[in-house]
Amino acid sequence: MATIAILGAGIMASALTVPLTDNGHDVRLVGTHLDRDIIDSIKKTGVHPNLDVKLSPSVRPYQLEDAEEAFRGAEIAMSGVNSFGVRWASQQFPRLLQPGMHVLAVTKGMDANDQGDLRILPEVLMEQVPDDLRSRVTWSAIVGPSIAGEVAVRRHTCVVFSGKEQSVLDHLSATFRTNHYHVWTSTDFVGCEVCAAMKNCYALSVGFAEGVLEAQGEANSRYRAHNYEAVLFAQGSTEIGHMLRLLGGRIETAYGLPGVGDMYVTAAGGRNVRVGRLIGTGLTYSEAHERLGRDVTLEGAAAIRVIGGALPKLTERGVIAPSDFPLMRALYDVMGHDQHLEVPWSSFFGGEPRSGAAAEGAPQQAR
Amino acid sequence: MATIAILGAGIMASALTVPLTDNGHDVRLVGTHLDRDIIDSIKKTGVHPNLDVKLSPSVRPYQLEDAEEAFRGAEIAMSGVNSFGVRWASQQFPRLLQPGMHVLAVTKGMDANDQGDLRILPEVLMEQVPDDLRSRVTWSAIVGPSIAGEVAVRRHTCVVFSGKEQSVLDHLSATFRTNHYHVWTSTDFVGCEVCAAMKNCYALSVGFAEGVLEAQGEANSRYRAHNYEAVLFAQGSTEIGHMLRLLGGRIETAYGLPGVGDMYVTAAGGRNVRVGRLIGTGLTYSEAHERLGRDVTLEGAAAIRVIGGALPKLTERGVIAPSDFPLMRALYDVMGHDQHLEVPWSSFFGGEPRSGAAAEGAPQQAR
Repeated sequence: MATIAILGAGIMASALTVPLTDNGHDVRLVGTHLDRDIIDSIKKTGVHPNLDVKLSPSVRPYQLEDAEEAFRGAEIAMSGVNSFGVRWASQQFPRLLQPGMHVLAVTKGMDANDQGDLRILPEVLMEQVPDDLRSRVTWSAIVGPSIAGEVAVRRHTCVVFSGKEQSVLDHLSATFRTNHYHVWTSTDFVGCEVCAAMKNCYALSVGFAEGVLEAQGEANSRYRAHNYEAVLFAQGSTEIGHMLRLLGGRIETAYGLPGVGDMYVTAAGGRNVRVGRLIGTGLTYSEAHERLGRDVTLEGAAAIRVIGGALPKLTERGVIAPSDFPLMRALYDVMGHDQHLEVPWSSFFGGEPRSGAAAEGAPQQAR
Repeated sequence: MATIAILGAGIMASALTVPLTDNGHDVRLVGTHLDRDIIDSIKKTGVHPNLDVKLSPSVRPYQLEDAEEAFRGAEIAMSGVNSFGVRWASQQFPRLLQPGMHVLAVTKGMDANDQGDLRILPEVLMEQVPDDLRSRVTWSAIVGPSIAGEVAVRRHTCVVFSGKEQSVLDHLSATFRTNHYHVWTSTDFVGCEVCAAMKNCYALSVGFAEGVLEAQGEANSRYRAHNYEAVLFAQGSTEIGHMLRLLGGRIETAYGLPGVGDMYVTAAGGRNVRVGRLIGTGLTYSEAHERLGRDVTLEGAAAIRVIGGALPKLTERGVIAPSDFPLMRALYDVMGHDQHLEVPWSSFFGGEPRSGAAAEGAPQQAR
């Protein structure tokens, strides 16, 4: 039996208590300052209110002020916060981590500096941890197609535990693996994290298609816009592959669970797709965000602002060509510059050969 | 203006008359012996009954007995039949083709010989054409995510014209390209055709998930089985990549429009997914086919029988390892051997590391 302490009681972190308690581990779930009501609910009834699932009675809920107690003696220290909370989590870790602990993060996103250099979020997570302690814990992350609620109700789920040390990954994956929660491992840490961040961006774009249909008065048409969705999916897959080559990831990562697998599940629904649909109807990003509620966090949009915002800088430095990543650049025009959506069809897949009617000045209907 | 003669008036071939007539070309649509009612309807009303779309009045419909007249003087000769009709189409071609014509096929599938050697369908299509004529026409095909009805109502669609001669592909693509029908080209003929065939198989498997939910009494649950679907999608993508390496295709083909793009659109609906759902509920393939109607053609199932049936032979010859293509082998157990579905989760992605509860003899719920 292992002891696992989790910082953050969001739906993903809380869902992961299910395979852990199925395996008989000691699980301590610590709410952030935003999770007080969740922890209160679990303490009272065992039910996670956002998941609407009753957690095992062996999960021990803690409010943030008791975090140090919860992490004491833990073997595995999980970061369960989302990308908006990763800097905060890094500030908490110095007082929570002990040498020998294995850190495991579920956060999906990327970070960029002023020069446009991109880095993966585990690097942000370890930033506030003093060098000496940082090198005496291990850093790994979970990626792959995994809707939290489905993990919580034990639907078959296949994920990848990623990090630099194979022996650590073997140990962590054995701790989580059940008959429903299937775990692979990968030492392509950069590749896995890049996929996890970028798939959110492209899954958001898949949502455009339904919105465009609505705007055209075709919402009830027999014929949907699946061809449209598939193009954005395939271009997303192509751009993820390109970014992996650029940052040193392995291409297999892009067309397995972390890349197309996770993009598929993210495109199947959720907030990213909903904001995409609203943008497809003709709203700007600001208007769409207003419509969903300003307090709704949109990780896909945030990742677009980071990654899309880095592209012009990388282009200026000659790291990439102006024609690279056309979909991510179009997404950045929407999320970063608040422009209306224009899908640059002919710039996809290395550029459509210029000939035929489309090149002869016929009016374009870009969206 | 070019003249295009099309053999077969199914939905895909007929939908392709839309970009062609939008570009002002002369289009002659020839029904097979199975398409008599379709041609009669188009002659009378212009409406393709299965598409439920009115074709341009400039499309000229022909019954099969007038095929030679329709093909006379055509520059582009299309094969619009599905994989069940490709041998028949090859028998028709010797009397229809003239030297200098460009053949363009829409058929998706593969063929295998007794040794398990796989070949692409354009090779079957050219088989009955005498050598002399065969070498004096060109052979190309259309692949990529393209639901016929969406092409017919001018939804944005991106496809790839594939063949061996770049200049021919440039010419053909310019003939079809419009502001909604975007066309790329690829000389990775084998890679494109392999993707087109295999994506049908894996898209069918994505349908299992909903059926399994139904069988578990979870059809109305808040939590679907998208994680399950995503695994089959990602494993499908991985196996397509493997087959491309084996047959000499380019890996980019697998993660662009022909591979994951087309698999995405195929998984979004249609007969392949419906038969998958029925199998997920616990039916055998025979029972599922009976339920859908024995006269319903299932190209995904047919491709599984061809490709999955070739794998044991390729394994025996040492071309592939017994652990390669675990999902296609599982699909073949269902479609070829009429067994009940068992998803071999732990054999995916090179094999799940064996440790933790799943390996300790705990009862498995494979489906």
